[in-house]
Order: sequence, then structure tokens, then C-alpha cells
Amino acid sequence: MSINTKKKQSSKKTAKKPAKQPPKKVAKKSSKSQIQNTLPDIEENFSEWFNEILFQAEILDYRYNLKGCGVWLGYGFKIRRAFLQIMRDLLDNTPIPHDEMLFPLLIPEDQFMKEKETVKGFEDQVYWVTHGGLTPLEVKLALRPTSETAMYPMAAKWIRSHQDLPLKTYQIANMFRFEGKNTRPLIRVREITTFKEAHTYHESKEDCANQIREAVSIYRNIFDSLGVPYLITQRPKWDTFPGADYTIAFDCIFLQTRKALQLGTIHNLGQRFAKTYDIKFETADGNQDYVYQTCYGISERGVASLIAIHGDNYGLKLPPVVAPIEIVIVPILFKNKEEKVLKVCNEFYKKLKKEGFKVRLDNRKISSGRKYFHWELRGVPIRVEIGPKDIEKNQIAAVRRDVKGKNFIPIDESIKYLSKLLKDIQESLHKSAKKRHDELIFRTNDLEEAIDFIDKNKGIAEIPFCGEEECAASIEKRLEGLKFLGIPDRYLPVLNKKVKKEKEIYCSHCMKPVTQYWRIGKTY
Amino acid sequence: MSINTKKKQSSKKTAKKPAKQPPKKVAKKSSKSQIQNTLPDIEENFSEWFNEILFQAEILDYRYNLKGCGVWLGYGFKIRRAFLQIMRDLLDNTPIPHDEMLFPLLIPEDQFMKEKETVKGFEDQVYWVTHGGLTPLEVKLALRPTSETAMYPMAAKWIRSHQDLPLKTYQIANMFRFEGKNTRPLIRVREITTFKEAHTYHESKEDCANQIREAVSIYRNIFDSLGVPYLITQRPKWDTFPGADYTIAFDCIFLQTRKALQLGTIHNLGQRFAKTYDIKFETADGNQDYVYQTCYGISERGVASLIAIHGDNYGLKLPPVVAPIEIVIVPILFKNKEEKVLKVCNEFYKKLKKEGFKVRLDNRKISSGRKYFHWELRGVPIRVEIGPKDIEKNQIAAVRRDVKGKNFIPIDESIKYLSKLLKDIQESLHKSAKKRHDELIFRTNDLEEAIDFIDKNKGIAEIPFCGEEECAASIEKRLEGLKFLGIPDRYLPVLNKKVKKEKEIYCSHCMKPVTQYWRIGKTY
Repeated sequence: MSINTKKKQSSKKTAKKPAKQPPKKVAKKSSKSQIQNTLPDIEENFSEWFNEILFQAEILDYRYNLKGCGVWLGYGFKIRRAFLQIMRDLLDNTPIPHDEMLFPLLIPEDQFMKEKETVKGFEDQVYWVTHGGLTPLEVKLALRPTSETAMYPMAAKWIRSHQDLPLKTYQIANMFRFEGKNTRPLIRVREITTFKEAHTYHESKEDCANQIREAVSIYRNIFDSLGVPYLITQRPKWDTFPGADYTIAFDCIFLQTRKALQLGTIHNLGQRFAKTYDIKFETADGNQDYVYQTCYGISERGVASLIAIHGDNYGLKLPPVVAPIEIVIVPILFKNKEEKVLKVCNEFYKKLKKEGFKVRLDNRKISSGRKYFHWELRGVPIRVEIGPKDIEKNQIAAVRRDVKGKNFIPIDESIKYLSKLLKDIQESLHKSAKKRHDELIFRTNDLEEAIDFIDKNKGIAEIPFCGEEECAASIEKRLEGLKFLGIPDRYLPVLNKKVKKEKEIYCSHCMKPVTQYWRIGKTY
Repeated sequence: MSINTKKKQSSKKTAKKPAKQPPKKVAKKSSKSQIQNTLPDIEENFSEWFNEILFQAEILDYRYNLKGCGVWLGYGFKIRRAFLQIMRDLLDNTPIPHDEMLFPLLIPEDQFMKEKETVKGFEDQVYWVTHGGLTPLEVKLALRPTSETAMYPMAAKWIRSHQDLPLKTYQIANMFRFEGKNTRPLIRVREITTFKEAHTYHESKEDCANQIREAVSIYRNIFDSLGVPYLITQRPKWDTFPGADYTIAFDCIFLQTRKALQLGTIHNLGQRFAKTYDIKFETADGNQDYVYQTCYGISERGVASLIAIHGDNYGLKLPPVVAPIEIVIVPILFKNKEEKVLKVCNEFYKKLKKEGFKVRLDNRKISSGRKYFHWELRGVPIRVEIGPKDIEKNQIAAVRRDVKGKNFIPIDESIKYLSKLLKDIQESLHKSAKKRHDELIFRTNDLEEAIDFIDKNKGIAEIPFCGEEECAASIEKRLEGLKFLGIPDRYLPVLNKKVKKEKEIYCSHCMKPVTQYWRIGKTY
């Protein structure tokens, strides 16, 4: 099934497809050929499109015999690698670097139960190991649903003095949550295969606030690299991470469903966990104090978001930074001229490879149309075509995946051109997604208008709001699935030197005078 | 505790040490200073030395509240990263590449129990998840002790035709084994944090044999890169992986304990698993057949072996390819000349960084002696010293970690010199380890001599042997912990065009005429 096997790929069929039920939809024709496109329509049936693209593009196979658990396939794993590399590069290279570590998966029950608030938040979701072989364990072991309770007892051993602070750590590992029936590939799963969680320890509230700002900036960088637009929102207090002072979230509104997906969260933990796990330090003036902490996590939803945001009816559109293949070369073969064309293609392949491009030469013995279809589906940013005419003219043809158009480039200028084109595609994907995302946010002082806007399934509304849970509950009742995301970043003291205050607006429910709009909408 | 924190490192103490009991031994003095070396003697007490170096060099912290589970610390994690990169580079770049994938950790009981032989091999060692939240699960879930039973039902879905073969896959993930009380850091653990397992699928026995050869060659490359010597041995049939036709193992004899540690195994699985999990394909001539399989695994023991093999009483000696820092620059500071020296050091640091060296400038305000001690312990291959005299003479001083000696190099020639020196160190560590390792292997026709050799704790003996389990049992009884490793690689048909046959030798127990020596010794 591998697309990487070079020896036999000339005759290889994607043999697994017969094993699957064809999606329930009318087949579309691909742009360039008579190949049947079996992807569901992305606008009409996004959820099926998403499941199907994961499978057809060999990203993940969810036919594993356990709900909410899937297999990362070769092509998908390479996207995952690039995604992790972006995160690692940013975390490793902050002025005070984050140290990557790895903590045990298993957490003894007593240690896990120590932080009551957190446990309450995860109680129904924890998988428990009770037996080793046939022997019942003396102490049950939790599969980590998140790692605070595994990490903080160790931090208490490491930190003695203010000279040990700040301590910044992170790990990338698998997490487990016993989710209900509504699992969704990459989005709501039982094994989160890819959870990056950073945990930092500080001397003071102020250092903690600085760290929150650094985390927000790292997260901006990560999602900007993926070309994924986002909203930064402080969650309502009733939706704050158990045990945290406050939670700031990155959400992305999916362009088709117009529902918001939480992509990552950043928590200011204050001293609560430090007190539970006794993480104390000697201050500069010789006193004892508890450390101040932050933590921030991002999961494989990052990959979900880049697939969802850029995709279209022909498949993936991958931003070059995460694309396993940036450029695919397709030889245009005519009888009696195959040898020459293949030779030139092979030389060009070697040249690009040497220049550091992620490049693939597709010399399988199948029609060009099938090749176009294959690589469009997999979102390769640029296709280069070289045929006998191009060789005569000393040129190549470059076709972008993201927008229509074919350009002919003199072969001597091709390296420079392709480099520039990759940069353009990277930016253009981001810009285009951001533009569409911006259109899904609507501000109004009129609750009825907001409800109407959301009911027609059109994204996130900002309404004047007092912040009270009771008022929120009354408003959320108005539509099924309606939820307060929280306070927009422009109002947050931690992220703004000067905080904006609105004038003469009134809570959409209790009509008290308020100074902020809040975000509300449907969420995943 | 991080050694990476730049801002405050000038005044940072390793504050965690007071929390630990000092090792029970007389402190040695470091070579260059009055700093107390608290490492146990590596020859006299290897096991304590090993535990202590993991902790002191910030590789792993085993004070986690669950036996056999440890925390990878910042410095150790970087060594682990380099180790994984070596494996990935080799597996990704075979002529037909191995696709990296990732399979679920949890395996439903019925699926796990299907392969009876394998289950028997792991029965007592499997951790079972029985509850999700407070709800008992309908089907118990095994934490993978190895992934055959997770992977092969998926492979059965992927493989339809000979055109899908060969399929080569691997994953790097955590595995769980409920080990008894004798856990050892990195060597016998309950959570194997780092298990690389490759699984390949083929059309024929011959392709399978070719794959075994490729696997052996990859493994040679991996351990050669780490500078770790090894023996390649086919395991006796009673010690073959459950379900496999045969198992070839890489073992390393630890130079101090002279016990062999199994570093990796390569299994020819034949068609057994294919029959259990129904992995069939259509052959080129239109018939149906079961696939032929191999699998091969390497764990974090790879890291254990490089630490053990190269280390000495002053700490680690890291081969440059896995060293998180190849070169540390230590400014030699005299009063009133600090500024100039720091400036030159900083310029030199930038120059090395730009050239792609993994370099660190240690400008902490502590004595040079403490710095030497710190970086020697952590095995940094080269220390560069720059003082006022060196600046006058336009030179640097380079000190190797692996052998004694300081060299003064004109600063203009330093880049070339340091590149070459790193290569030399890489080779020299390997060569020196190999030489000492070779001395621990002894061949004799006299069983008494072999027993005596091993009893005096001196490595592996090769004795004439018939291959019968009963004979083996009789011989193994002669010494506690004595074990047959198996048949040396020189006798294996799969690895040799012409197989060596010994003449006129007789089994060390039953005295039947035999044609092979077998390896026997004590093992971890």
C-alpha cells in the first residue's frame, strides 16, 4: 500500500480500496482526466469528506478494531513529523529554552487522586489498569489523561531555590480519554496519539504572566506556519481547566461547518498545584514560597485543522512547510520519446533533490491523468510536467495545487522560480484561509440577530455580555449546541498594555451595563 | 535544574542534589580540580555507577513513584533524539523505504488472544485496562507488550495482491511489560518508552531472507554509529520469539560486568502470523498465498549500551553523533581580562555555531574546574579553552574527553581541526570499545575451561555444541545465570554464502560429533 516503494511502483495499484465501501455520493470528475473522484462534497458533507480524505490520502486508517483509535499511515506520519518539528523548533529556541522530557504513561491512583479539582474534571474519562498478567495490582494505575499529576511530584524534587527557576519543560506523548460514542478522527479520540504539553515553573505572578505571553506567541507562530487562522479567547470561568486561574484558548472556525474547534489551550495555574504537590522554593530573600505555574497543550487537532481549512473537493492542499512532498515531477510520455523525457526528468529530479527540495519523480506506468489525480488528492503544492515539447523549448511546466494555472519556466530559472512559488503558496494558503475565516465572525448588540446569524450556521457572534454563568445558561438554551467561547483577546490585561473597554453596551440577557463583547457559537 | 537555561545559569546551582542520598563510596578527585566526584567506581560497582550517571548527567530520573518507570530529562532526551534519528535515517532510506506509522497502544483482548503462541510468551507480563471511568469495559484492553497483534489485522486489510508487496513499516512507541522486582533503568523496565519495531511483508521465503539480511545490515549500522560492539547470534530454538521460525539477536558484552545484554532482535516469522490473522495475497500467477513476514526491534537499551560501553570514572563519553553538545567552550578568566576573553569566546562560539557544530559557551560565574567537571561528567567530546595567553598567540586549546591530552591550534585552522577531531573521536571510541569487547570472547573445546573462564566473570565462551535443549539444560546448570546465547553468525546460512563447518569437534555434553561452536555466558 505504500506510496514510497520505488521498485514496484510502476505496476502498483491502490489495492486496499476494494476492501472499503464506496462513499455514498455521485462521483465527480477530476479536473484533468476521467479518473473518478470518490470524495464526498466538502461543502455539503464535510464530516464524510474529512473521514474519507484521511483514508484516501493515507493519513490515518480508523478501521482499527477499537473505537476512537486509529493508525497513522506513512504519508500522514510524515505530515505529523513536520508538525512536531515546527513545535519543537519553537519550544527549543525560546530565549530560555523549553527542555523536552518524557514522563511515564502510568500514574498510581493515590498520586492521581491528590489534586481533587483536576480529578473531578476527568473522573469519567480515565482508563484504569487493574491487572499485571493475571495478578490484580495493589494500586490501580491511570493512563494519563494529561500529565500534571505525573509531572508535579517530580518537579517538587527538582526545584529547591529561585536559582532553579524558571524551569520550562514539555513532552510530546500519547494520552487517553474514555470518550463517549461521538468520537471523530483526530478531533475526539480515545487515544490522543500526539499531545504536546508544556509545563513551566516560576518565581512570581509576573513571570507567570510573561510566560503566558510567550506561550501565546509560540502558538501564534505554530498556527501561522500551518496557515491555520484562529481566534484567541479567554474561556468563561465555568469552562476553565480544573485547578487553573484562567484558560486562554485558540479556536479555529471550520469553514464548511462553521463550528469552532479548540486547537490549543494555555493555562495560568497560579500556585494551586504547587500547594497540592508541595513544589516550594527558597526566594532570593531567604523565605519559602510555592512556585507559580503555567501549562499549555496542543494535540493532533493541529493536523486536523490544516487538513480541514485548506482542503477542497479534489483533496488536500498542504502548506509546503508540512508537505511530505513539495514538488512532484510527472513525465509527459509520447511513443518513442519516453527515454529522452525520462532522462531529463531524472536529471531535474536529482537537481531539485540536491537543492534541498522535497521532491518525488512519478515514473509509474500509468496515465498522466491518474498521476495528477493521485497527487492532487495528496495535496502536493507543485506539480512539474516535462514533455518532449518542453525539452525542445528548454522549459518546464509548473502547476500549483492551490489555485488554477500552469506556467512555463525556462529550465535555467526553474530553481529560483520554484523556491519563490513555494513561498507564495505558503503565504497564499494562509491569506485565503484567513480571509474566509474573518467573514465568519459577526458582532452585534442584538441577541436575536446573533442567534439568527448562528442558527443559519454561520460562525461566531460577539455579543455584549456580563460574564455570569446564569445569564450564559439562559442564552445557551436558545440553540442546541450553542456555547460561550469567552472573552476576546483584545480585552485581556495579560495580552494588552492598554485594555479596550466598550461604552454603552448592555448584557444580552440581564441588560446590566457591561464593557466587553463575548464570543458565542457552536463548537466541536 | 535545566542545564539549558541561559538567563540565569551564571548563578545556578544543581539544587536537586541535596534531595538525594550521597552514593556510598569514597569520593574521588576529578582530574583537573578539587571538585568531588561522587560517581561510584565503574569497575568495582558498575550497577551503581550506571544508576548514578543516569541521574547525575540528567539523562533519566527513576525516582518516579512507580517501579520500572522513569523520566527522561532534558539532556538524556537529546541523546534519545539523536539515537532515534540514526534509526529513522537508516529505515527511511533503504532502497525500498520503511514507512513510519503509529498504531494504537490498546489491543482488545479477543484480538490479542488470537495468536496463542505469542500470548503464551507474554501472558504474565501484560497490563490490562479493565475500566473506563467507573464503568467496567465490555472487552478488556491490553497495553501492547509488542505490536504484532495490533498491526497484523490492519495489514490484512491493506494487502490484496503481490503488487502490494513488499510492504515495510515501522513504529517507535512505548510498550509495557509487567516485569518482576528486578527492574533496571533502561534495561529491564515496565514502560519501555522507546521501542522501535519494524514489520515487513513479502511474497516469498527468499524475499524474507533478503529482508533478514537488510535488517542485520541496518542494525550493524546503528550500533556502529553508536560505537557499540556486538555479537550476532541465532538464538536456540527454545529461546526463539514465540511464533517465529528463528530469531537473530545482537548482544553486547558489558565491559565491566562481562554479562551480555540483548540489544536487538530480528525475527523471521514465516507464514505463521499470516495464517492466524489471514494476511493473504494474490500471487503473480493468480493463486492465493499467505504473506511471509519478518519483524525486528530495538529499544532504549541502545542508549544504555552506549552509556555503559564508553563511560569511565569521570562520567559519560559520548560519541559525537549522539552528543547533545559536541564542543563546549570554557573561557579562562583572569582579573581585568574577562571582557576581552569573553568577547573572543563569544565570537568563536558564533563561528562554530554557524559552521553547524553543536556547541555551547559556558560563561557561568563558577570556577573553570567546576566547568571541566560538569562537562566531563556529561561526556562532551571536546572542550575548547580560550584564555588571555591563547588570544595573544592567536590560538585555542582543545581537550579531548576520550583520551588524555591538550592541543594548541592556531585559531585560523581550528574549524578544520575540530571537524577532524570529532571524526577521530567517533572512530576511536568505537575502536577502543571493540578491542576490549573482542578480548571477552573465548573459544575452547574444553567445557571445564569454558566454565572456569565464565565463572571468573570474563565474558562469553564458544564451545562445541549439538543444539539439543536437554544438553543445554545440563550445561546451564553448571553455573548460576549461565545461558546459551546460540549460534554464531558465521554458521548461519541466511548471512553467509558459504557456511563454515567445523571438523572433529564434539558436543560439550553428549559428545556427539558436531560442526558448530555455540556461544554461552551470563546475560542480563
